[in-house]
Amino acid sequence: MPSPEAVIDLLAALAYGELSAFDRLADDARMAPTLAGRAEMSSMAAIEFGHYQRLADRLVVLGAEPTEAMAPFVAALETYHSLTEPSTWLEGVVKAYVGDGMAADFYREVAALVDDETGDLIRDVLTEADRAEFAVREVRAAIADQPAVAGRLALWARRLVGEAISQTQHVLADRESLMLLLVEGTGDLTGVAALLGRITDRHTERMETLGLSG
Amino acid sequence: MPSPEAVIDLLAALAYGELSAFDRLADDARMAPTLAGRAEMSSMAAIEFGHYQRLADRLVVLGAEPTEAMAPFVAALETYHSLTEPSTWLEGVVKAYVGDGMAADFYREVAALVDDETGDLIRDVLTEADRAEFAVREVRAAIADQPAVAGRLALWARRLVGEAISQTQHVLADRESLMLLLVEGTGDLTGVAALLGRITDRHTERMETLGLSG
Repeated sequence: MPSPEAVIDLLAALAYGELSAFDRLADDARMAPTLAGRAEMSSMAAIEFGHYQRLADRLVVLGAEPTEAMAPFVAALETYHSLTEPSTWLEGVVKAYVGDGMAADFYREVAALVDDETGDLIRDVLTEADRAEFAVREVRAAIADQPAVAGRLALWARRLVGEAISQTQHVLADRESLMLLLVEGTGDLTGVAALLGRITDRHTERMETLGLSG
Repeated sequence: MPSPEAVIDLLAALAYGELSAFDRLADDARMAPTLAGRAEMSSMAAIEFGHYQRLADRLVVLGAEPTEAMAPFVAALETYHSLTEPSTWLEGVVKAYVGDGMAADFYREVAALVDDETGDLIRDVLTEADRAEFAVREVRAAIADQPAVAGRLALWARRLVGEAISQTQHVLADRESLMLLLVEGTGDLTGVAALLGRITDRHTERMETLGLSG
């Protein structure tokens, strides 16, 4: 079983992830070409805030002060977002689906390594619901209209993945509790490699869903 | 009884008001000096989005397409927000309490002039909950720390009110259905004047609550 510190770190990292996802989705919603698109991305933002709230409440139950617990993860998340600031509506859509989707897969894998109650909460706040459908509709319509868009968005997705991996490594190097959770939870480094393989597979599926797999 | 068009216009204006309030609160939350303040203002934004959703759902029940119904009100709301963009955290806090509070009072008055079901929905989505407490805490602490802040924020509040009135006039001049609802609902222009008097009184109370009435 992971240490209580590891569980708090995990929930806090995820909580700050949700709070910053709220912030970024709300920001990116402004680039929507239609009021309907704007409402749809704003709705995703509001849902993320609800998830943040549940995670923050859980941190309180575990005796942690949410803002203190989240503090160690602010820099990595903000760096990720500032290095992957979408400059177009479609980049925002791809980020919301591919970037957030990959983060969700990572947390879902880690959820299997902790106690059931924590694991259930994590799986619960990571439901992506209609996000795929939304992204597919927006991206496929754009590609149909202008095929060159596909190549640019594929490169963009690669950048998202690169920055996400880089910041995750920073966090793990910095938080021993999380690194231990990952290594001990999966058994050993082979287990970690298998976990990363599964995440990569699901990322590839997402890219295919969007029509961006080249 | 007001015309169906007036009810749809009213709900649509309010719905776009909520959607843009979501957007602006999420934006202003970034200026928070603490993570706790940011989470608190983000929470207000998420609540506004929930209200937007309920109003949009109601528009659908009434046979209207929400984005079409909201379209006539986009310009006035966006103008209001662009002319009252907070440049500091405290300006954002005052706007969220004083500006949004005044708009809420206006809608609450109008809610008395429509059918019960519409009126109940409007009153329901306008609960300000903890916003007063939050604003009082932030503003009073700032004034205690630096008394000159009070004068600047009082001027800011006056600007918010001026722009809100100006944009409301534009909307009413543009939407005959809403103007009729207001004049016929209150009886006559004396009734409108009394309504505006009540809104002004409540605004004055808010300014006193914040310690900005000196």
